[in-house]
Amino acid sequence: MDIELRSQILGFLDKGPAFLPGLSIDCVVFGYHEGELRVLLLDIRHTPYFSLPGGFIYQEESIDEAALRILNERAGLQDVYLEQFRVFGQAGRGNYRIHREMLAAYGIEPDPGHWLLQRFVSIGYYALVDYTKVKPSPDIFSVSCDWHPLEELPELILDHRNIIHHALGSLRLMLDHKLSGFNLLPETFTMADLQGVYEAILGKKLQRTNFQRKMLSLGILERLDKKWTGGAHKAPYLYRFDAQKEEE
Amino acid sequence: MDIELRSQILGFLDKGPAFLPGLSIDCVVFGYHEGELRVLLLDIRHTPYFSLPGGFIYQEESIDEAALRILNERAGLQDVYLEQFRVFGQAGRGNYRIHREMLAAYGIEPDPGHWLLQRFVSIGYYALVDYTKVKPSPDIFSVSCDWHPLEELPELILDHRNIIHHALGSLRLMLDHKLSGFNLLPETFTMADLQGVYEAILGKKLQRTNFQRKMLSLGILERLDKKWTGGAHKAPYLYRFDAQKEEE
Repeated sequence: MDIELRSQILGFLDKGPAFLPGLSIDCVVFGYHEGELRVLLLDIRHTPYFSLPGGFIYQEESIDEAALRILNERAGLQDVYLEQFRVFGQAGRGNYRIHREMLAAYGIEPDPGHWLLQRFVSIGYYALVDYTKVKPSPDIFSVSCDWHPLEELPELILDHRNIIHHALGSLRLMLDHKLSGFNLLPETFTMADLQGVYEAILGKKLQRTNFQRKMLSLGILERLDKKWTGGAHKAPYLYRFDAQKEEE
Repeated sequence: MDIELRSQILGFLDKGPAFLPGLSIDCVVFGYHEGELRVLLLDIRHTPYFSLPGGFIYQEESIDEAALRILNERAGLQDVYLEQFRVFGQAGRGNYRIHREMLAAYGIEPDPGHWLLQRFVSIGYYALVDYTKVKPSPDIFSVSCDWHPLEELPELILDHRNIIHHALGSLRLMLDHKLSGFNLLPETFTMADLQGVYEAILGKKLQRTNFQRKMLSLGILERLDKKWTGGAHKAPYLYRFDAQKEEE
């Protein structure tokens, strides 16, 4: 048994009263790589399950602040684009068995009334990040924090698969309205990159000229120099999302 | 002092442990009347403030079940169309002063740690109802439960004005996607009625022929007989929303 880890876990359990009781946050972090959407999942120690990066809300912080802190603590992320999208509040919703299994591996046996073994109502957030910039790092409860293709999710705890499903639905609905898809790309990108992001989110192929016309008509893209491809192909233009133009 | 009411209020306060701590639900109930959107508000006893119909979640019920029960208990509603739309979770969000004022009128002085005087994270739902069918009735905490035009809201407790603002924004966004606007109308309606609902929600005039073409093209309206107007005008057709067609 890892004594240092055990002591860190005990320290976390002691923090129970500092959190809002029975309320949690779960974050679906979307990244875009090689033409597909991926989500960040934690491989929970001493169990066969994976989970979304999630956590609890301190008594004196807002839920939005808590979501940002949790993404930092559990996945090593900073400054991410976040949207609250839905609350998951089924009766009896709790992580009873898996928390017990995980704690048992450190010889910790919480009593039935323990704060971690209650019903939890969870607030779902989704985050959109630039895959190339993120260096996910696991927390004390996880073996690893890694990207998983949406199409090949491992076994997840609780209703986390359903949370991902709802996050994707919300992202699709908001795509045109919030123009949030740009957060999945590096600062500069080609029109083909952008179309790839939209296709991955919407789960369908889009017609190239229509897509390009629609995007350019929004007046939110700044065209930069051509991309140096080194090849004999026609070099595509690079674009940058111009937040200032969006506000006009 | 109304002794019977005092005893009912004490009975309610005793129920604290039966609820999920620190979590509440607030409902924005939209109705459509005389060309405008209205919301149901409770006039809170012994305070100058109004509030949305809201309440708490029993340990063994889902948040959706709680929202339906709360609308029934606090406003006398049944079988309403409900959508969860956002969580309001600012730090320090609580109804400390107004709850104290209201309870003081019955000689009840809760101690500072009382469950009702904590921070509450609130889950926002909006409901769409047929104005003509609703007979709102107030609960023990309210003098009245009545419709108020969105444009002339009275003084509201806490962030309830902001909750209404977000509910309307969410309703607007979802209008085309969920076709939920029909829930604001009686079972049969004219195209002009439907256009009125859309205009009230979107806060702008729509072009009549375009609107009609768009609605008919959705294939979700069943055309019935003409409306008997008794006048010399050309009688308009009545329509009914056909949920079965929507599913096809």
